[in-house]
Amino acid sequence: MKAAPPPQARLPHGLRDVRAGEIHAAAAMTHRLAEVCAAWGFMALETPILEYADALGKFLPDAERPNAGVFALQDDDEKWLALRYDLTAPLARHVAAHYDELPKPFRRFQHGFVFRNEKPDPGRYRQFLQFDADVVGAPVPFADAELFALAAACMEALGLEGNYRLRISNRKLLDGLLECIGIAPEDSAAGGQRLAVLRAMDKLERLGIAAVEELLGAGRRDASGDVTAGAGLAPEAAKRVVDFVASAEGSGNDAVLSEMEKAVSGSARGQEGSAELRALIGWMEDFGVAAESIRIDPSIVRGLEYYTGPIFEIDLGGADPRLARFGAVGGGGRYDDLIARFGKREIPATGFSIGISRLQAGLEAIGKLGMETESGLQVVVLMPNSADKSAAATWIRQMRAAGLRAEVYLGGGGLRAQMRYADRRNARIAVICGEQERKRGEVTLRNLVLGKKLSADMQDHAAWKEGGKAQISVPVDALLPRIQEMLRNETP
Amino acid sequence: MKAAPPPQARLPHGLRDVRAGEIHAAAAMTHRLAEVCAAWGFMALETPILEYADALGKFLPDAERPNAGVFALQDDDEKWLALRYDLTAPLARHVAAHYDELPKPFRRFQHGFVFRNEKPDPGRYRQFLQFDADVVGAPVPFADAELFALAAACMEALGLEGNYRLRISNRKLLDGLLECIGIAPEDSAAGGQRLAVLRAMDKLERLGIAAVEELLGAGRRDASGDVTAGAGLAPEAAKRVVDFVASAEGSGNDAVLSEMEKAVSGSARGQEGSAELRALIGWMEDFGVAAESIRIDPSIVRGLEYYTGPIFEIDLGGADPRLARFGAVGGGGRYDDLIARFGKREIPATGFSIGISRLQAGLEAIGKLGMETESGLQVVVLMPNSADKSAAATWIRQMRAAGLRAEVYLGGGGLRAQMRYADRRNARIAVICGEQERKRGEVTLRNLVLGKKLSADMQDHAAWKEGGKAQISVPVDALLPRIQEMLRNETP
Repeated sequence: MKAAPPPQARLPHGLRDVRAGEIHAAAAMTHRLAEVCAAWGFMALETPILEYADALGKFLPDAERPNAGVFALQDDDEKWLALRYDLTAPLARHVAAHYDELPKPFRRFQHGFVFRNEKPDPGRYRQFLQFDADVVGAPVPFADAELFALAAACMEALGLEGNYRLRISNRKLLDGLLECIGIAPEDSAAGGQRLAVLRAMDKLERLGIAAVEELLGAGRRDASGDVTAGAGLAPEAAKRVVDFVASAEGSGNDAVLSEMEKAVSGSARGQEGSAELRALIGWMEDFGVAAESIRIDPSIVRGLEYYTGPIFEIDLGGADPRLARFGAVGGGGRYDDLIARFGKREIPATGFSIGISRLQAGLEAIGKLGMETESGLQVVVLMPNSADKSAAATWIRQMRAAGLRAEVYLGGGGLRAQMRYADRRNARIAVICGEQERKRGEVTLRNLVLGKKLSADMQDHAAWKEGGKAQISVPVDALLPRIQEMLRNETP
Repeated sequence: MKAAPPPQARLPHGLRDVRAGEIHAAAAMTHRLAEVCAAWGFMALETPILEYADALGKFLPDAERPNAGVFALQDDDEKWLALRYDLTAPLARHVAAHYDELPKPFRRFQHGFVFRNEKPDPGRYRQFLQFDADVVGAPVPFADAELFALAAACMEALGLEGNYRLRISNRKLLDGLLECIGIAPEDSAAGGQRLAVLRAMDKLERLGIAAVEELLGAGRRDASGDVTAGAGLAPEAAKRVVDFVASAEGSGNDAVLSEMEKAVSGSARGQEGSAELRALIGWMEDFGVAAESIRIDPSIVRGLEYYTGPIFEIDLGGADPRLARFGAVGGGGRYDDLIARFGKREIPATGFSIGISRLQAGLEAIGKLGMETESGLQVVVLMPNSADKSAAATWIRQMRAAGLRAEVYLGGGGLRAQMRYADRRNARIAVICGEQERKRGEVTLRNLVLGKKLSADMQDHAAWKEGGKAQISVPVDALLPRIQEMLRNETP
């Protein structure tokens, strides 16, 4: 029997390992967002990563993509489980299961990994961090205003003042528009066409207005020759939709709203949507959102089918041109029917999600991520073969008790390899105790920061070995105070 | 066609939702552990929750249990993926894949969810939090000493001084013992018997010495009638193993070590294991572990097959009797062969895992968990039907800008329902702005903490409604300073 080949040490496509600097930065970001949410009266919730597939449902934004979907598996009793693909579906399940025990309205925030079984793109992973805040049981647009304002406060807390915009619309306006072109929201037979129209509108930013017009009508052939079926609207209906979508061009929120109102004139639902938006943006400013950050935008559709009222997207961009390419880092809106799918009762809800990884890339691009150095290590005790391990362990204990970040070298190799390790770890001081020194009751301290500066000037190996000014011998008893002194005097 | 029944709002067995208090406590715990690890020179690493099943391997401690195993699923290309069941297998994969880029030794810590597809027990979940620290590339027992000492420092950092013990042994001692009874470690044909002997030894604490003797010999029938096959040792061999296991009874570490040495006399490997342990416990004390917390214990086996040197278990218990029932909250040891399974090179490693959820339950039992109140909410602005939403949003903005945790009521219902909500959220102050007050330019502040104290004395509803001393009217302009004053004066 031939032995099986060893397994390969690799990860599936679209999954990755994360190193210390990025871990610290993401933790600092979510910590700041959690603090904002707590200050705004939101409570933390954690749900498991695995759930019953039917309890999560399938509410994925990218239903068009062939490989879009969830990671699913069968339990021992043959029931299907799935890895959560967002934090909204688990919230709906939690609320439906625990409604009577929860304070109402229920204000909760949550962050955690979500999973998409999709073809990965560069910078788009199959496991990623999301941060969500939602209010369940609040039927009023005033609640949407607070939620959207919270999203803005989250951006500001991360240092993005002036570098983000909330693009806002209302599903009721879109419903009104569809009503006006003969697709009633109640008409379930027209559901496919309704979705095709919404998807076409959603493409404005990516494909431009001519493409949207084709997608609303007979369909569109792209540069590669692929054909996307159209929504099949008559030319005058398509024109009306295009006018609606294009009403944002270059005008202020009031003008855009007036244009939108004209486009839905004749639909009571459309008028209601417009009135909600007017009130909404006023309250958002009362809650502290800068007027420049709020943009009414009729092209905002949000892929998810479950939205029923105000919707919005959080875009990076604004003052800093380096952010332009990042686009949407989050969004959300009102979804009054989602919890009712569990068959118990109608429970209104509104909320948003922020993609932490994408936002992190944006912050990195403008130098606001604040990644720490790998470990901030201060002292490494090097261990020549002759080293007294007991003494080294005792020194290390004293340094740590004094609040220093210190470690003892545990690998093999000579002093040269050990010095390379200390450099590699960005340690600031190396402690070296050779045999001769030990006999004298002394130990050598090497200032690695100063040493690096000086080494550029040194001519030969002997000078390096001596260490010159960067290296001193101190009595063993004075080790800790001399290290503290060296750290204090270090040029920052 | 009949409509499908609505999905049930429920979780699979062994999975659970976690509420705010427990989330905060777990986050505070892992934060403290991460700080200790950073001070000890360890770097954070994050690996994905999903990996290739063959890269993770199957190194589960409970291989005996029929449903033991991993959650596995097939990717689109039919490769098997699995949810990680610990943090050691992903570390081995990471090191094998990135060995050349890593500083060596590689000191890393990691925490995150791990998953076991097992029959859940009360308090034992299928998703749980683990915290690991490991050193890879350090072959010396001095490294084990530092790792085991780090585990002790983690316990102390959580306030468990005097309430935990590290129970320590060495696989080399066990190998020596098996050698002495004719089961050579190199003899792969005897692998099954070897494992059966180790498993029998592992049962000492749970089943007692008589049961261990049966399991070492012909086998054992338990109270329910179930039969466990025995290791099939001859009586004198079984006696030697039992003597070894029992050598801990009531004596100090030195005496236990001497007994263990006698039991493995004749095995060079056994002697080596004993010498390592003697040095190890000395260095652990040098690294700062209290001698009382270290117990050499020959019954420690650790289920995992991959250990090759010193092993240990972290037990709660000691000064506080409430901790006795918790038992092991973690453990680990040296595993020099695990990374070599990727077929590249031998890389020695040593490390440990702590079960955060189990430890959390222990801390809660002795009142050291430090769970915060749900949100620490300070102010709720109540919203009668007539309320001016714009004014309320503006007040809330000012309070939050002043650092207060404040929210506005977003639900339906009258003032009574709103007051119940404020109570439910443990808010300290309610702000109420009725129509009459608004006309006078005033607003009512109700001190909910004081109100609760007074309400016991109040006789009738009218008195409650008046609010008495707990309630004051203030000019709208003075709202924020009067709230701050009320919070300052609050009896803590």
